[in-house]
Amino acid sequence: MILEKGNKLLFIGDSITDCDRKKPEGEGTFDALGKGYVSFVDALLQSTYPELGIRVVNQGISGNTVRDLHARWQEDVLAHNPDWLSIMIGINDVWRQFDKPLIKEKHVYLDEYAETLEKLVSETRRNVKGMVLMTPFYIENNEDAMLHTMNQYGDIVKQLAEKYDCILVDTQAAFNKVLKNLHSSALAWDRVHPSATGHMLLARAFLREISFNWEK
Amino acid sequence: MILEKGNKLLFIGDSITDCDRKKPEGEGTFDALGKGYVSFVDALLQSTYPELGIRVVNQGISGNTVRDLHARWQEDVLAHNPDWLSIMIGINDVWRQFDKPLIKEKHVYLDEYAETLEKLVSETRRNVKGMVLMTPFYIENNEDAMLHTMNQYGDIVKQLAEKYDCILVDTQAAFNKVLKNLHSSALAWDRVHPSATGHMLLARAFLREISFNWEK
Amino acid sequence: MILEKGNKLLFIGDSITDCDRKKPEGEGTFDALGKGYVSFVDALLQSTYPELGIRVVNQGISGNTVRDLHARWQEDVLAHNPDWLSIMIGINDVWRQFDKPLIKEKHVYLDEYAETLEKLVSETRRNVKGMVLMTPFYIENNEDAMLHTMNQYGDIVKQLAEKYDCILVDTQAAFNKVLKNLHSSALAWDRVHPSATGHMLLARAFLREISFNWEK
Amino acid sequence: MILEKGNKLLFIGDSITDCDRKKPEGEGTFDALGKGYVSFVDALLQSTYPELGIRVVNQGISGNTVRDLHARWQEDVLAHNPDWLSIMIGINDVWRQFDKPLIKEKHVYLDEYAETLEKLVSETRRNVKGMVLMTPFYIENNEDAMLHTMNQYGDIVKQLAEKYDCILVDTQAAFNKVLKNLHSSALAWDRVHPSATGHMLLARAFLREISFNWEK
Amino acid sequence: MILEKGNKLLFIGDSITDCDRKKPEGEGTFDALGKGYVSFVDALLQSTYPELGIRVVNQGISGNTVRDLHARWQEDVLAHNPDWLSIMIGINDVWRQFDKPLIKEKHVYLDEYAETLEKLVSETRRNVKGMVLMTPFYIENNEDAMLHTMNQYGDIVKQLAEKYDCILVDTQAAFNKVLKNLHSSALAWDRVHPSATGHMLLARAFLREISFNWEK
Amino acid sequence: MILEKGNKLLFIGDSITDCDRKKPEGEGTFDALGKGYVSFVDALLQSTYPELGIRVVNQGISGNTVRDLHARWQEDVLAHNPDWLSIMIGINDVWRQFDKPLIKEKHVYLDEYAETLEKLVSETRRNVKGMVLMTPFYIENNEDAMLHTMNQYGDIVKQLAEKYDCILVDTQAAFNKVLKNLHSSALAWDRVHPSATGHMLLARAFLREISFNWEK
Amino acid sequence: MILEKGNKLLFIGDSITDCDRKKPEGEGTFDALGKGYVSFVDALLQSTYPELGIRVVNQGISGNTVRDLHARWQEDVLAHNPDWLSIMIGINDVWRQFDKPLIKEKHVYLDEYAETLEKLVSETRRNVKGMVLMTPFYIENNEDAMLHTMNQYGDIVKQLAEKYDCILVDTQAAFNKVLKNLHSSALAWDRVHPSATGHMLLARAFLREISFNWEK
Amino acid sequence: MILEKGNKLLFIGDSITDCDRKKPEGEGTFDALGKGYVSFVDALLQSTYPELGIRVVNQGISGNTVRDLHARWQEDVLAHNPDWLSIMIGINDVWRQFDKPLIKEKHVYLDEYAETLEKLVSETRRNVKGMVLMTPFYIENNEDAMLHTMNQYGDIVKQLAEKYDCILVDTQAAFNKVLKNLHSSALAWDRVHPSATGHMLLARAFLREISFNWEK
Repeated sequence: MILEKGNKLLFIGDSITDCDRKKPEGEGTFDALGKGYVSFVDALLQSTYPELGIRVVNQGISGNTVRDLHARWQEDVLAHNPDWLSIMIGINDVWRQFDKPLIKEKHVYLDEYAETLEKLVSETRRNVKGMVLMTPFYIENNEDAMLHTMNQYGDIVKQLAEKYDCILVDTQAAFNKVLKNLHSSALAWDRVHPSATGHMLLARAFLREISFNWEK
Repeated sequence: MILEKGNKLLFIGDSITDCDRKKPEGEGTFDALGKGYVSFVDALLQSTYPELGIRVVNQGISGNTVRDLHARWQEDVLAHNPDWLSIMIGINDVWRQFDKPLIKEKHVYLDEYAETLEKLVSETRRNVKGMVLMTPFYIENNEDAMLHTMNQYGDIVKQLAEKYDCILVDTQAAFNKVLKNLHSSALAWDRVHPSATGHMLLARAFLREISFNWEK
Repeated sequence: MILEKGNKLLFIGDSITDCDRKKPEGEGTFDALGKGYVSFVDALLQSTYPELGIRVVNQGISGNTVRDLHARWQEDVLAHNPDWLSIMIGINDVWRQFDKPLIKEKHVYLDEYAETLEKLVSETRRNVKGMVLMTPFYIENNEDAMLHTMNQYGDIVKQLAEKYDCILVDTQAAFNKVLKNLHSSALAWDRVHPSATGHMLLARAFLREISFNWEK
Repeated sequence: MILEKGNKLLFIGDSITDCDRKKPEGEGTFDALGKGYVSFVDALLQSTYPELGIRVVNQGISGNTVRDLHARWQEDVLAHNPDWLSIMIGINDVWRQFDKPLIKEKHVYLDEYAETLEKLVSETRRNVKGMVLMTPFYIENNEDAMLHTMNQYGDIVKQLAEKYDCILVDTQAAFNKVLKNLHSSALAWDRVHPSATGHMLLARAFLREISFNWEK
Repeated sequence: MILEKGNKLLFIGDSITDCDRKKPEGEGTFDALGKGYVSFVDALLQSTYPELGIRVVNQGISGNTVRDLHARWQEDVLAHNPDWLSIMIGINDVWRQFDKPLIKEKHVYLDEYAETLEKLVSETRRNVKGMVLMTPFYIENNEDAMLHTMNQYGDIVKQLAEKYDCILVDTQAAFNKVLKNLHSSALAWDRVHPSATGHMLLARAFLREISFNWEK
Repeated sequence: MILEKGNKLLFIGDSITDCDRKKPEGEGTFDALGKGYVSFVDALLQSTYPELGIRVVNQGISGNTVRDLHARWQEDVLAHNPDWLSIMIGINDVWRQFDKPLIKEKHVYLDEYAETLEKLVSETRRNVKGMVLMTPFYIENNEDAMLHTMNQYGDIVKQLAEKYDCILVDTQAAFNKVLKNLHSSALAWDRVHPSATGHMLLARAFLREISFNWEK
Repeated sequence: MILEKGNKLLFIGDSITDCDRKKPEGEGTFDALGKGYVSFVDALLQSTYPELGIRVVNQGISGNTVRDLHARWQEDVLAHNPDWLSIMIGINDVWRQFDKPLIKEKHVYLDEYAETLEKLVSETRRNVKGMVLMTPFYIENNEDAMLHTMNQYGDIVKQLAEKYDCILVDTQAAFNKVLKNLHSSALAWDRVHPSATGHMLLARAFLREISFNWEK
Repeated sequence: MILEKGNKLLFIGDSITDCDRKKPEGEGTFDALGKGYVSFVDALLQSTYPELGIRVVNQGISGNTVRDLHARWQEDVLAHNPDWLSIMIGINDVWRQFDKPLIKEKHVYLDEYAETLEKLVSETRRNVKGMVLMTPFYIENNEDAMLHTMNQYGDIVKQLAEKYDCILVDTQAAFNKVLKNLHSSALAWDRVHPSATGHMLLARAFLREISFNWEK
């Protein structure tokens, strides 16, 4: 596995990352990491590699867009000095364009998204040992307009991962594979906030990319 | 308008009808009719035709399928002696097949749906002055599998309306019209439980079919 | 209809407007517009004219008088840059004179009401495409002293509508019509806060004046 | 004063009597008598005539009509063996005809009211030392239709008081006197459930008729 | 009665006065005056002299001693410009000496009490039309040490009433009269916070001294 | 100490014994024994004699009189097969005579108390290894009427302890000793429900009589 | 993997299994499976083998011993007709002997445990396709008396697994491995109810024994 | 006993001391001292030596380490001018090293503990009449790593007690004595927060060292 003894791994993102984590610091015992994929990643890391002492911190906040991440980057990311940083952002940037089409000041369009995310990645990349970029996703079986837009945002993530030597986690691809067998309503009534199954799928996709050894 | 002075109009259905109505009887002041289309129909009837004294009763129960309606038909419909009866059922009959595909005992497949609904309609039709059949719906922009199935259930409703001389309210058609301009997430995050806009659309579709006079 | 594509319509007023809207901004999904006539107007607009994308904002606050509106006008009205503005105020200005006759500092008498409301209307009129003035009302069947006073306040509203080229919504006339058939207790136990029927009546009165097309 | 040492005085009625009394028995310390006129009567009796040890019991239940009193008469009145019995009923019998005009099965019309109340009074009168009949009331300044009906019910109470040698408390007259100076909204927003002032007025009207000595 | 048309009567004191009044201003509808003697005085005044429009304000705060009154005198008394002022303070000044004998910094001994109260009375007396001084009390049947001390505080009140031409309400005497017939536990389990009977007794004692006409 | 290895000690009584114990069985971890003297006795026994394994059960119920104990004796005492039984009852038997003097059916007078308690003691005495009778008490500094009555009930307890070879715990004497230094309000605002100090005093009085060795 | 398409897998046990599952049936969406290892097993199965449609049911109840399982076996296990059954029981059977040593009727000693569990396993084995027996565990770093006893119960489980051809999950061994690196307080403050890490460890131990393919 | 008439005894520490005491000042009636050993010490002192008037103050705060005590020493200890001061700190200093091994900034290692505690003791010792140092403890039957570390911290406490003439309370020794008969789970599920038995054990250990006379 890529993570090394004593590494601190920080997750930043929106409600998918947040999942009722402890505030202000998402770290410690008793559901401090929330109830989503971050908690699952931690549980799998600690139960499989207890000897490594990987420190996991969850700094996700529900409803965030990349604009919000930018505003709290210093305090919620840099000040923690993570060795590894994982970013998953963009769902709300897109969703607001579809569920609140009239409230345009809450929309974060593709240009702003790309520019802001690149700023955060480029400025932070050298300060961490490794960075993981997770694409935003939409749990949708059909050729949907919002899925189409989400994929454009995902493409930005893929380009940045390539450009800045980050590990890419293609969450949309992971969901798409399961959606061949299941209707989206079985994974998430609102196509965004998944069940435990969906979060486990995210955790597995993440761990696969950091060469987690399941058979250990 | 078709409804006449002193008529009692009873609505039966699932959560779309229920909307937190008062239990056990969904009638009276202070949100007794719930917060959905039934309340809107009532408010439009009372404010427009106060002289008619139309009595509206809401007997919807969240999560119900046609199987559940059958079980409580005597107590919750017939015992109330309505002059007019409106039925909207089928969403959960279909939804469970998609969001809980493994729990098959909760699925109500097309045959059972058709047979049970016909039994209820046929036996009750002669006891009421008029009956309104509202199709079940799915708020979906795309060519979706669950929408496809829902339309089959809706077809049953259309056939029964024809066969038993009921007024048909094609709720799916009403939603489809609006979905040309809006993404489904703007109307209902889960594509089933609509916002006030969606409920108003249902109320308007209902009232149009009973010749409500908006300009009165 | 008078409203045009992309217009923002802002409602300001007291508890009749407020109806548990979201604070500080009364806009968005999930009952953000409250449960009263503003929500009904929005639901009717969105379900009938989805292609217009009319943006509705609710800035009502329970208990407000025109004195309170004046104090928060900049922040809660002007800062939002509405295209259309609807004002309904005056009920508490009058009510306090009758239900708390001894607490005179909370009374807003006719002169202050007229002067303050005119100041708000006159200064704002040129900044908006259109303005709707809704009279305050009292849901009362009889020749009542408070109704008598309320009508004086309503007359001010009518004069201002005329003078400043605003659309007038005579809410009292709308209620009076229904009160021919119903006792006031059937619409509002306290003769002020109406049931859904009363709010629908307000919504319909509003929409009629802006040439809403019910048959669309 | 008419009440004698050790007498038990039982009040029966609707929400005006109930006022959150303790259930099932409305007797004892800590607001067991509720927060309305019954509590005030008791407080005035105990503080003025502590040596008499008058025992006051409150058996009012919110929403009751005379039909409800009849159903629970044995258990809630006779089983308590009161020396004195005070009855105030009829407000809901009338109110439902006005606030829920369509739900006719909840209306108790004048004939049923008169007949049922007479049955209760006539059968019980000989078993108690004294009986007080309080008229139902409506706190209304105007010539109102519901007030008109309420007065008809009050007239029944007056006739029964005369016929069966009961003490009459004309609560409507007591309210009317105060309403010369105050608008009904200052006493009760819904014209039925009064403020402490209204309840004190009821207590004083009651005590005046049983020759309470205020100067003692 | 001594109070005249339009007079404002303000009560200041501790928990006996407070009784869950509305904060920060103890005035208005819906239990704003609390549930104790102040509310009873108001209810008796309004129901008997509705034509006078006496305005009653409750500024009591639970746990207060005369030291606390001094600290908030400007804001909670003088700023209200009362015509009449009623003060009842001293119970906590004494009680803390007995129930928390070791926490001496919370004790207000006789000298401080006398000096502070005189300061408040003397400086305020000329600014009001009338002032009522109510003695503190202890509901106790026996020759008790705390009662003994309380009576010393009551004596101070009596002397100040005499010296500054205030109306005296001897609450202890009023309780003592009833205690001839009742054990203190029937009036107040803790001998301080009375039942409705005890509060009515306080209200009656107050009203007697301002020449309230019960027979009006 | 008198208690022997493995003995079960059951306490029965009123609110002083109850103190929010777990229901229906007052035994186990996490405050199952309540927060009063029973818990203190247990804590002192377990921490001092852990090797004995004394099993303590609390079956007190708030508000109970000896009449209530009689009604639940089989189920709540005998069915538990205690080795040792401790009874403290009588406070409510007396208190109701003073705080609710008019509700005579709740009073348990001396004769009934003596007779019922003797019945319980005499029938149970042979079935247990030992029985402790604790007198009821009243925390009162003065020559009070209720204290006088309570002492009569305490005398009954003393006679029964003598007659049936029970261990007597004179709780009143224990409180009296402390009351030489403290006012009753420092121990119990209502003179009945003591602070932790009062409960510790009860625990110590109990333990002294069973020869508890604090120095162990 | 051993499980086949359409299999129903039922888990029965105590609080470790329960983890706030839905009652009465622990199946469906929205945390119906609780928040522990059962939910993790399900999430891993559904996200990895969505095409198999494995149905997972959680019937654990907090505090249960094998005695409780026996009492509800018919209703909570057999009536569900599982294809696969997993049993983890015994922790409370042992724990009560240590945390409540005096309440012996709640202890389930080794003989009763062995006999009852064998009865359940032997009678049910032929009715299911496969059975998984999970040992009870104690998260303890040291040579502890309770751990020693727990291991005896675990040995029974191992023997039964062998005798009745069940799959064995040695949970204690799984925990012991991690405890080489972590103190028990890092996994479970009470050494019984583990963190997400502990539950993931259980899930992985379970899945390993049913040949779950992590790399799929 | 060592404490003298009128002495103020202040306890400072962590959750063992805190036990839900009143904030900000842990002093007064109604559980102001919390529900742990401080309350027990107070109850035993007040019930045994009421004539001394020992004033007990609880300033414990849950989760505190010696680092936290240092930060609030002036405000929470010195500003109270205690005659006697009791300190029990160190459990969280150690526990965090074991239950959150990765969050190293929350660990207080032995050097910092020793240095900080000595600073507090040395600077405060001359300002108080007496100081009691209670060792931190861990309720553990086995040769446990965390117990081993805790004992090192306890040794620091013992050295400081010796060096600065403080009274030492060896809480670990007190627990160890009971643990010969009981498993740690019978005293504290998490081996840290004890039952009432454990708190009584602490109270007794404390009182023994200040020569409390139980037989008084």
